[in-house]
Amino acid sequence: MDLRLTFLGTGAGYPTPQRNVTALAVERGRRLYLLDCGEGTLRALQAAGVGYGRLRAVFFSHFHADHCLGLPGLLQTFQLMGRERRLDIYGPPGVKEFVRRAVNLAPFSPTFCTIAHEIGPEAPVTLDGLTVTSAWMDHSVPVLGYRLQEPDQPGHLDVERARRLGVPEGPALGRLKAGETVEGEGGRMVRPEEVVGPGRSGRSLVFSSDTRPNRNVVALAAGADLLVHDSTFTEAHLARAGETGHSTAAQAAATARDAGADTLYLWHFSQRYADPDTHLAEARAVFPATEAAADGLSLELPGKPAAS
Amino acid sequence: MDLRLTFLGTGAGYPTPQRNVTALAVERGRRLYLLDCGEGTLRALQAAGVGYGRLRAVFFSHFHADHCLGLPGLLQTFQLMGRERRLDIYGPPGVKEFVRRAVNLAPFSPTFCTIAHEIGPEAPVTLDGLTVTSAWMDHSVPVLGYRLQEPDQPGHLDVERARRLGVPEGPALGRLKAGETVEGEGGRMVRPEEVVGPGRSGRSLVFSSDTRPNRNVVALAAGADLLVHDSTFTEAHLARAGETGHSTAAQAAATARDAGADTLYLWHFSQRYADPDTHLAEARAVFPATEAAADGLSLELPGKPAAS
Repeated sequence: MDLRLTFLGTGAGYPTPQRNVTALAVERGRRLYLLDCGEGTLRALQAAGVGYGRLRAVFFSHFHADHCLGLPGLLQTFQLMGRERRLDIYGPPGVKEFVRRAVNLAPFSPTFCTIAHEIGPEAPVTLDGLTVTSAWMDHSVPVLGYRLQEPDQPGHLDVERARRLGVPEGPALGRLKAGETVEGEGGRMVRPEEVVGPGRSGRSLVFSSDTRPNRNVVALAAGADLLVHDSTFTEAHLARAGETGHSTAAQAAATARDAGADTLYLWHFSQRYADPDTHLAEARAVFPATEAAADGLSLELPGKPAAS
Repeated sequence: MDLRLTFLGTGAGYPTPQRNVTALAVERGRRLYLLDCGEGTLRALQAAGVGYGRLRAVFFSHFHADHCLGLPGLLQTFQLMGRERRLDIYGPPGVKEFVRRAVNLAPFSPTFCTIAHEIGPEAPVTLDGLTVTSAWMDHSVPVLGYRLQEPDQPGHLDVERARRLGVPEGPALGRLKAGETVEGEGGRMVRPEEVVGPGRSGRSLVFSSDTRPNRNVVALAAGADLLVHDSTFTEAHLARAGETGHSTAAQAAATARDAGADTLYLWHFSQRYADPDTHLAEARAVFPATEAAADGLSLELPGKPAAS
């Protein structure tokens, strides 16, 4: 199943012509999810060619303006289009109140239900086969970071080959697929690796949202395929990062390194920087597999073989 | 004093990559005013190079989502920038409640005051020398149309010439400038046109917002330099225009003609149309001085001599 990530807004605080405020689209198969939803998210989805009618759920990290003001317009547009399917909206405590305010900001005659779910680290969400876990970040208000985790996919069982090796039809095939050795006809022991192809590890995507470096995000991102991490500042503004509850690019890189993530994408850049060159250089000195997000950048997460 | 109009969003209902939802910027001298403020207005101001820190007041026509959802982000950005000067927000009854909701949508620690004013046709607003009058339009909810009117500028009094014609210093000069004939030394009558140059008529800009054709908008736009009028539909969708409380381009043109406006700009185009060619052709058949607005289009209103 395709898993695609599109950066809709990669700037901090307020929009500029170069970078809109925070939102990230995750498409998996025919489903679409949003992580945060800053003002202008709908237009950014359109510009990126993402079919937003397929939106299944929104996950909010917190309710600072640059992460959430795009929700009212999204709901209004769904209503104009006659959406009927419910929309699930997840977030830390406060999400029910925020959704209530977003719905009531302008006259709204909904054609669909908007269901707000207050969640937290103690209660992972299972949605369309994805497991979404969260952890508390370290910011000026309670912020949830999220991990979207696919289940591991078992390898393909070659039924024809199993039959030739004398494995009987029935439960023995299931036991082989589950990793057991079974007895075939004539007493020959058949090992799973003889008839089951390589499995595929579930892909994982972690989104820190606004945060200082912290242990929870290292744990949340353990072994992740992709970590998208707050990179508001360069090292020249290290003190300001701490004061405002954000990270420098090098701090994001240290988190990716300590978590053993495969790839780091920097984002949530302060609008004071004309380009992310310094962020990238400082981060790559710590964690070479670092990239800079840009509005509209879209990437496919490839499948990967199971860890041996 | 320069008077400049910039179209920030010219589409109806919901944004598309081609047209954002409704907002119009009026710059007069160093002051900036907004007429409506759809989602994305801040970014549209930035893209048009309009210095939004100078914003003096917002005039809302009504509170349908496509005309107002940009206010929360604008207020939040002003707060981040440490704005201190108060912001006046005018609109029909409901504006106080809308501003309260916009302020409370996300956490907001204002550095400035936001003052909401409920206004209507009975109470014109005088602001920085402009007179803003309003009239009730004909839509599915109460909508105000607005006229921004500059005062007429009197002509320049040539004091030296008056003196040569024997007009004494003092009140007689004021009476000449006000259009009276006065007696100079030796009994010679001095007429104002001998010493006062041509005056300049105040410029006027009228904004219909969402409306069916109606008498009020014709009266509001009487002799206006520029009328910006709802042109959601072409004649092919005439019935739908009536049902939804909007106008066709030809109806907008008939309004401009009946009002004796100088120029008509069509806007608030339904997003179903790829281009405004049909709107323009249908409108120009009724009122030749018609143009189609586009996002980012900016125009200077030239001064004009006084009507003789």
